[in-house]
Amino acid sequence: MEKNEETLRVLRHSTSHIMAQAVQKLFPSAKLAIGPATADGFYYDFDLTDGHAFTTDDLAKIEEEMKNIVKQNLTFEKVYVDDVDKQIKEFMDEGEIYKAELLEEHRNDNPTLYVTRDKDGNAYFNDLCAGPHLPNTSYIKANAFKLLKVAGAYWRGNEKNKMLQRIYATAYWNKEDLDNYLHMIEEAEKRDHRKLGTQLDLFSVREEIGGGLVLWHPNLAVVREEIENYWRSEHRKRGYVIVTTPQLAKSKLWEISGHMDHYKDNMFFIQKDKEDEDQFVVKPMNCPFHILIYQANRHSYRSLPLRMAELGTVYRKEKSGALSGLTRVQGFTQDDAHVFCTPEQLVDEINAIIDFVADTMAIFEMDFEVELSTRPESYVGSLENWDLAEKGLKQAMDSRGMKYDINEGDGAFYGPKIDFKVKDAIGRTWQCATIQLDFNLPARFDIKYQDKDGQLKTPVMLHRVIFGSMERFHGLLIEHYAGAFPTWLAPTQVAIVPISNDKHTDYAEAVYKKMRAVGIRANLDDRSESMNYKIRESLQDKKIPYVCVIGDKEIESGTVSVRARGIGQIGTFPVDEFISIIEKEIETRANNSFAKKTE
Amino acid sequence: MEKNEETLRVLRHSTSHIMAQAVQKLFPSAKLAIGPATADGFYYDFDLTDGHAFTTDDLAKIEEEMKNIVKQNLTFEKVYVDDVDKQIKEFMDEGEIYKAELLEEHRNDNPTLYVTRDKDGNAYFNDLCAGPHLPNTSYIKANAFKLLKVAGAYWRGNEKNKMLQRIYATAYWNKEDLDNYLHMIEEAEKRDHRKLGTQLDLFSVREEIGGGLVLWHPNLAVVREEIENYWRSEHRKRGYVIVTTPQLAKSKLWEISGHMDHYKDNMFFIQKDKEDEDQFVVKPMNCPFHILIYQANRHSYRSLPLRMAELGTVYRKEKSGALSGLTRVQGFTQDDAHVFCTPEQLVDEINAIIDFVADTMAIFEMDFEVELSTRPESYVGSLENWDLAEKGLKQAMDSRGMKYDINEGDGAFYGPKIDFKVKDAIGRTWQCATIQLDFNLPARFDIKYQDKDGQLKTPVMLHRVIFGSMERFHGLLIEHYAGAFPTWLAPTQVAIVPISNDKHTDYAEAVYKKMRAVGIRANLDDRSESMNYKIRESLQDKKIPYVCVIGDKEIESGTVSVRARGIGQIGTFPVDEFISIIEKEIETRANNSFAKKTE
Repeated sequence: MEKNEETLRVLRHSTSHIMAQAVQKLFPSAKLAIGPATADGFYYDFDLTDGHAFTTDDLAKIEEEMKNIVKQNLTFEKVYVDDVDKQIKEFMDEGEIYKAELLEEHRNDNPTLYVTRDKDGNAYFNDLCAGPHLPNTSYIKANAFKLLKVAGAYWRGNEKNKMLQRIYATAYWNKEDLDNYLHMIEEAEKRDHRKLGTQLDLFSVREEIGGGLVLWHPNLAVVREEIENYWRSEHRKRGYVIVTTPQLAKSKLWEISGHMDHYKDNMFFIQKDKEDEDQFVVKPMNCPFHILIYQANRHSYRSLPLRMAELGTVYRKEKSGALSGLTRVQGFTQDDAHVFCTPEQLVDEINAIIDFVADTMAIFEMDFEVELSTRPESYVGSLENWDLAEKGLKQAMDSRGMKYDINEGDGAFYGPKIDFKVKDAIGRTWQCATIQLDFNLPARFDIKYQDKDGQLKTPVMLHRVIFGSMERFHGLLIEHYAGAFPTWLAPTQVAIVPISNDKHTDYAEAVYKKMRAVGIRANLDDRSESMNYKIRESLQDKKIPYVCVIGDKEIESGTVSVRARGIGQIGTFPVDEFISIIEKEIETRANNSFAKKTE
Repeated sequence: MEKNEETLRVLRHSTSHIMAQAVQKLFPSAKLAIGPATADGFYYDFDLTDGHAFTTDDLAKIEEEMKNIVKQNLTFEKVYVDDVDKQIKEFMDEGEIYKAELLEEHRNDNPTLYVTRDKDGNAYFNDLCAGPHLPNTSYIKANAFKLLKVAGAYWRGNEKNKMLQRIYATAYWNKEDLDNYLHMIEEAEKRDHRKLGTQLDLFSVREEIGGGLVLWHPNLAVVREEIENYWRSEHRKRGYVIVTTPQLAKSKLWEISGHMDHYKDNMFFIQKDKEDEDQFVVKPMNCPFHILIYQANRHSYRSLPLRMAELGTVYRKEKSGALSGLTRVQGFTQDDAHVFCTPEQLVDEINAIIDFVADTMAIFEMDFEVELSTRPESYVGSLENWDLAEKGLKQAMDSRGMKYDINEGDGAFYGPKIDFKVKDAIGRTWQCATIQLDFNLPARFDIKYQDKDGQLKTPVMLHRVIFGSMERFHGLLIEHYAGAFPTWLAPTQVAIVPISNDKHTDYAEAVYKKMRAVGIRANLDDRSESMNYKIRESLQDKKIPYVCVIGDKEIESGTVSVRARGIGQIGTFPVDEFISIIEKEIETRANNSFAKKTE
């Protein structure tokens, strides 16, 4: 069997059957609900009808039992259910009411069971299941699966149903892959941006305001300001114009755009008073506003491409249960842009955006993978335009030798798109940048340009984000850097610690002022704590890149004694020299000039 | 009679009686409504019962007739109405139904008439009026009043009543003052930011979006970006932290803040769906969010003052009739800040803000006047705190020898304030910066700091804006500069015009690229129009500060031939030298380095 992503799901699904078999052996009251493979592993939902709640010890026992089972080299056998009614009765007799319910639903789908047997044909376990499964348990390595945690889960995700117990687990082809994964989730937990958000005083979400509506504290607002400055200056360099549009607009605008038809559930509507004529809506998207600005002037092929960008804050209604930290929010700022161009300009424009994404992600030392989604069955726009667009997207990527996956038929009804999945420091992928073609809005708003031949034509419209949402991207950055931002982004770049507050504070303050004057975010730590406490707190807890310690020797020689985050003591520098080093590090957006020297 | 602002209102009110007298002489069907003095002049509302509509010619005739009347040296005589019923009957007999209605209302207020008589005692005109008036018409100079325009106005401003004809006019003590005023309104009309907004492609307000919700086009967004950059860097320098807070929050927050009680009519509420538990509101203010961020950490006297700033976009519901351009809007960004400090720090903090306002307005070459509003009759907070605060505000202003008017009892119920009224280039004043003390919110949110003595105390809270609203301030800037922004703000700073597109475009493009590379907003004008047309359009219509013309001579010598807006030809410069001049002009935020040299 080839070991790829698809067969990994089969391994996990089969391991989930083994887990269920082990659970039923150890906990005979357990009734089975569902047990699918997921992107990272698998789970199984159990109803322990005797009321027992799984403990951590139970998980260890179940894992042991599973190891025993897989050693028996059992086979997974597919069996068609010929007599559905009989099988339902059998399930009901066994108390397997969830299986019975599912079978009833799938009675016309050629339902199958998978039976786990030994070589003598004895059946140890059977489950209603469409498969596929491994041929036998020899593929499941006893040291390459792991039960992770228990959580509550409603039958069919509906809170009106019974709460079941879900065991989360994972499985890999070998121990090394499992260990890597376990290391990754351990790392991910340490890097959780919600935890670091509190520790580093970066942001908060407050009950008085509501879920998914973020307060950016000064520390994270600094990071955002740096990133926005980069964003704006890069856009200007790359020939974009920048606009600002309001958050509220009449529902009329959203009727023209079509959002009232297909996006209503995610839109916040303003309550109408008796005397109000118009219904206002909080914007979920910036596109219609940019189109109105396009319309404010006449356009010819000579004035295109028009690249219009905005850091546009939008609001999208989500279920409160789905909200979390910076990554699942209701209010967020898109680094949005729309490019209006002629068909002839399309490939160049796409290439320019890919360059922009690549250049930007390189700054954060992040790789990305690319996916192209093509025309779905039902679509708007002409076949000719779709072909042109898909060819354009492919041509742009091919011309630079870029690898990409194709999701056939997975594009939006209004156009094909390229998604960029960014890889963070621990190998997880995050959806960030997108290039999306749109054949719908230009037609709905009837926008035009005058072509060389004097004819009025409809421009091609591209939606494009680089970061996606500022909130989500900052969540990603916090986890990517584990809160230890590179110097150009660090909320505090240098902490200045006088050894004795009495003797060394004057000089420390002079150094502090010198740094502030050139725009370095320095902090003078003259609290009455010990020097070592202050150094440790600055470097480790607050993750400040540099600490300058100042004592008698430094004052005498006009120097600072510097510790760097993650490195330790790096030496003593004349004040001006150290300032120059930091200034250059900030300017080049480098992460710690001393890291390489000492490695 | 002393000629001050108060007696000027008397002059205008008396002139309005003369206007009514003239109208009734020339248009006998005219019935009189009201005719008050205003800040800039006066008006009178007439009901022309024969259906005639005033024309521009009519205004000239009325003005002539008024000149005849004032020459007759008539007196204004006050007459008490002894028998109100009799007087009402008289008004009704004359068809003066509006006067009758007003007299009926004021029957118990000791009503008076003012009668205009000649020296022989003949009465030419009488009006129900509380006065005061001039002794006689000799004070009204025939060359110092002017009828301006006619507009419709509902009786008592209620659209269910009859539409009357309002004649707007003004009067001054002498011709010079009148001419200055007429020049000012002519200038104001030319500078109207709505007109320039279209001409210079700065912004638009669109029917599809709604009134008072502004689309910032690329040109004005550039100006705003420069101003926001200045704003952010100045805030960092002056020890502020910057935050970002969301536009939506639960109504609970506004219950704590008290806005649900006293600000409800101006708040946009989100429509609640059936399954929604919480009522959300679009924020009309940033203050409660900043208080929540204050609350996210413990504070001691050592960590104060905390100066927290945000470019916070808020929405306030207004009647659609009241909306106009950038100056009367429903959505706007406040350059908001809140300073939390100890009582001991108050005077220094106020002084620092006054410095900030003065330094900022100096950049735009604008003066300002200051008003202090003190404790009203009903107030929250202790008398001790109010006295401390008012003393603090006065002390700060006195210590710098600053003049200010005092509006006794005109403060908000929650604290005293200082308003800064900025004077624009044609002498009009605009309300911009404010410093407002608040004894209410710190108590409502129960915020604390630990003082030197270990006690938890309530900090003093200051609300503060410099620009007020970004929308309004940009409206002011457009009118102040008449659209001719100084170089650092100009959307396009330099237009580059090749004399012949065939021969000179390559060099022009090289100059263009050189300028763009150092961040100068240059524009290469290679359209097939004549050189003179392009120069005129750039300098006069688009108000671009500089035009560089490029022909054979310039290419040979590596120079540009430069025209400056409002000046004309200023000479030929080596490219690098001209770039340096412009860069310095931008960096120093100076307005045209060549203006002084040539004056």
